[in-house]
Amino acid sequence: MEPFKLTQDVLVTIKALIGAQNALELTEFFTDFHYADIAEVVNELDTKEALFLIRTLDSERTGDVLTEIDEDQREEILKELSAVEIATELSELDTDDAADIITELPTELAQEVISEIEDREHAAEIIELLRYDENSAGGLMAKELIKVNENWTVTTCVREMRVQAEHVTRVHSIYVVDNENVLKGRLSLKDLLISPNNTHIKEVYIPKVDYVTVNEDPEEVAKIMAKYDLEAIPVVDEMKRLVGRITIDDIIDVIKEEAEKDYQQMAGITQDVYADDSILDLTKARLPWLIVGLLGGLGAAFIMGTFEAIINDHAILFFFTPLIAAMAGNVGVQSSAIIVQGIANDDIKGSISARLSKELLLALLNGFILAAILFVCTWIWKGEVLTASAISLSLIAVIVIAGLIGTFIPLFLHKRGVDPAVATGPFITTSNDIFGILIYFWIAKLILGL
Amino acid sequence: MEPFKLTQDVLVTIKALIGAQNALELTEFFTDFHYADIAEVVNELDTKEALFLIRTLDSERTGDVLTEIDEDQREEILKELSAVEIATELSELDTDDAADIITELPTELAQEVISEIEDREHAAEIIELLRYDENSAGGLMAKELIKVNENWTVTTCVREMRVQAEHVTRVHSIYVVDNENVLKGRLSLKDLLISPNNTHIKEVYIPKVDYVTVNEDPEEVAKIMAKYDLEAIPVVDEMKRLVGRITIDDIIDVIKEEAEKDYQQMAGITQDVYADDSILDLTKARLPWLIVGLLGGLGAAFIMGTFEAIINDHAILFFFTPLIAAMAGNVGVQSSAIIVQGIANDDIKGSISARLSKELLLALLNGFILAAILFVCTWIWKGEVLTASAISLSLIAVIVIAGLIGTFIPLFLHKRGVDPAVATGPFITTSNDIFGILIYFWIAKLILGL
Repeated sequence: MEPFKLTQDVLVTIKALIGAQNALELTEFFTDFHYADIAEVVNELDTKEALFLIRTLDSERTGDVLTEIDEDQREEILKELSAVEIATELSELDTDDAADIITELPTELAQEVISEIEDREHAAEIIELLRYDENSAGGLMAKELIKVNENWTVTTCVREMRVQAEHVTRVHSIYVVDNENVLKGRLSLKDLLISPNNTHIKEVYIPKVDYVTVNEDPEEVAKIMAKYDLEAIPVVDEMKRLVGRITIDDIIDVIKEEAEKDYQQMAGITQDVYADDSILDLTKARLPWLIVGLLGGLGAAFIMGTFEAIINDHAILFFFTPLIAAMAGNVGVQSSAIIVQGIANDDIKGSISARLSKELLLALLNGFILAAILFVCTWIWKGEVLTASAISLSLIAVIVIAGLIGTFIPLFLHKRGVDPAVATGPFITTSNDIFGILIYFWIAKLILGL
Repeated sequence: MEPFKLTQDVLVTIKALIGAQNALELTEFFTDFHYADIAEVVNELDTKEALFLIRTLDSERTGDVLTEIDEDQREEILKELSAVEIATELSELDTDDAADIITELPTELAQEVISEIEDREHAAEIIELLRYDENSAGGLMAKELIKVNENWTVTTCVREMRVQAEHVTRVHSIYVVDNENVLKGRLSLKDLLISPNNTHIKEVYIPKVDYVTVNEDPEEVAKIMAKYDLEAIPVVDEMKRLVGRITIDDIIDVIKEEAEKDYQQMAGITQDVYADDSILDLTKARLPWLIVGLLGGLGAAFIMGTFEAIINDHAILFFFTPLIAAMAGNVGVQSSAIIVQGIANDDIKGSISARLSKELLLALLNGFILAAILFVCTWIWKGEVLTASAISLSLIAVIVIAGLIGTFIPLFLHKRGVDPAVATGPFITTSNDIFGILIYFWIAKLILGL
């Protein structure tokens, strides 16, 4: 099948069918649709249309549609559905997806929805998941998994597995636990099939199994699963009891969100926003760093104000302040980005001073090349060797210091347990702007003997 | 098992064993090690030590170790291994990983290695993979998969699958092809097990199967697999013949590399570099955008030079140029980052003019708030209402234009088929610096009646 593409034509057809309340044809139209494609359609409908579509299609797919659509659209739809309707949708979902939707509901409605879920075991599992911090392995895991007791025989095991498998979309691994539900290892399907019926699982399981604990950071889980090419990983509590399982599709979302967050932070955007968000949300996300930038610019202006006395004889020094600020900012962002990425990949080994020495050499090399270009241009423009030298030498100093600040700050924050990504972008640019201009005037004054 | 952590102590022990050429104890030490952990160790060894370790351990694991270690280290190790030794390592690898390593070898050595691979079918498959562009679905896929002919009976099918499964680490899906190897669908293991032995596959397979063609962009493959939560996807050629399969672990690498590339581009780093790369590589990656920034700064200086006549009476205008440049840059980066991310997520719908109108409103809102702050600060500082007004009003104009440029450029590049991510970071900052300062002086001159 070629991947589905939502065209304007298709959308018009769907909207017409909804408008005519033609449930029969709608059901037929969507027969072969994947829930992810239906979600794409629902995102383009208004709430009323979306509600009609969701009520028309079977809850087996619409449950998944609800987890896939945009948060805003989901919020609007959930407002209109009754507790019983929401409970029906959640009954079809894996526990982790159901828990995610319940977290978005107002407390009272959430209670009501949980009490309306018919399968009480499913409800209990969802409630258990709600206890965990969203930003932990516990908040990411699902209760759906296949586990067998080490004391079972092969016969019991096969029978029990059949029952459990009904609730699990993809089996991946069979986990082995003891009577206290403590994770002991995993079972290979092949070993299970070739063992005599009365063999105990204890005798055939593989004790080597990777796992994470409920409190583990999702980023760390992602690293482990990517490193060992795992498609699922069991989650245990503090007493090593098996409590859930994380699958690779959830980890892909973690990796993508993490990357988006770092990207937005470097661009000076403080919260998770999308191009389609409201102007108010976008302003809230963009204004804070702009204000910091403004204050930085004011700082630079005050610094330049203190050098006002030399403006008549050395106007050219003032012409180069945007250049100095820009270079300080660019060098700072480059060096901090490399460090932040290195930290994220666990690539940063060795001491902070070794890193700073390397950056010093690098900044000197870049600085000399750039200063040479600047010297030639300025000399040709104004014909003053001394002024050209002063500006160029200041540039080298500014680049070196900007590089060192860009290297040091993320390393320092990381050592202190703070996410170093907050130090990229406007933070580095703004502080380097101020430092850069200050250093620039000092050195220039020194060389020009002012 | 708790995830492995490579400590200094462990490394010292390993280095001592290698130093003493104690092959026996080394083999024992590494018995239960995952190849990804061995790779982590090898990255910390010098080439000689790494060679000894690789020659000591069984090629079943060291093949995988070679694919996991850093590229520089791999290059050094491959230089020292003979063609026969490399061929032995490659024989243990999946075809996609083997092809990736062969691409890194000098042409002659590559030829020799291929001719030394004992399993000629494996060699032929590797050669086939070498034909595809690295940056396509063909370059990403492996030949290892399970496929059955629609004309086979269930009995033949099970027998053939058993043979094929020997080469496939994870089965994921059973693909169904016709006599011409054209992909027809997939087979559920359950359907296979419950069908009578003489049933033809034709009668039981599921014709619905997602696939991609060999020329598909890896990013597009990643989007499809993430959207439909697929753990593997078949790859077909232009005639819809089944030629390979892409698994989710390779897609995770694609997603990560893509995110790193965008991040580095925004930071003004032109090639894929890591904190541990040589100073020369790092300079090559960082210098180009710094030169662009320098030229931008020179442009700004020339523009300010043309306004030199007013410097005596309005020095304060010059003090605010770094602020104006910084704000123009920050606003531009914010708006372009949101658009670039929206394009990457297929979230940007509607016309360019609709986007620009939204950004106009947003920039006006941000601009007024920031201008108000700037007005108050400048007024308090210098006590001149007219100058404070001129600077503040210019700031609004600069923010609006910077926002529009930041929104328009990536949308325009995307329409032209160019990766919009190249327009983030220094590109936007530098062009906005120049435009910003030009607009600022024009408007300020206008208001001050100069």
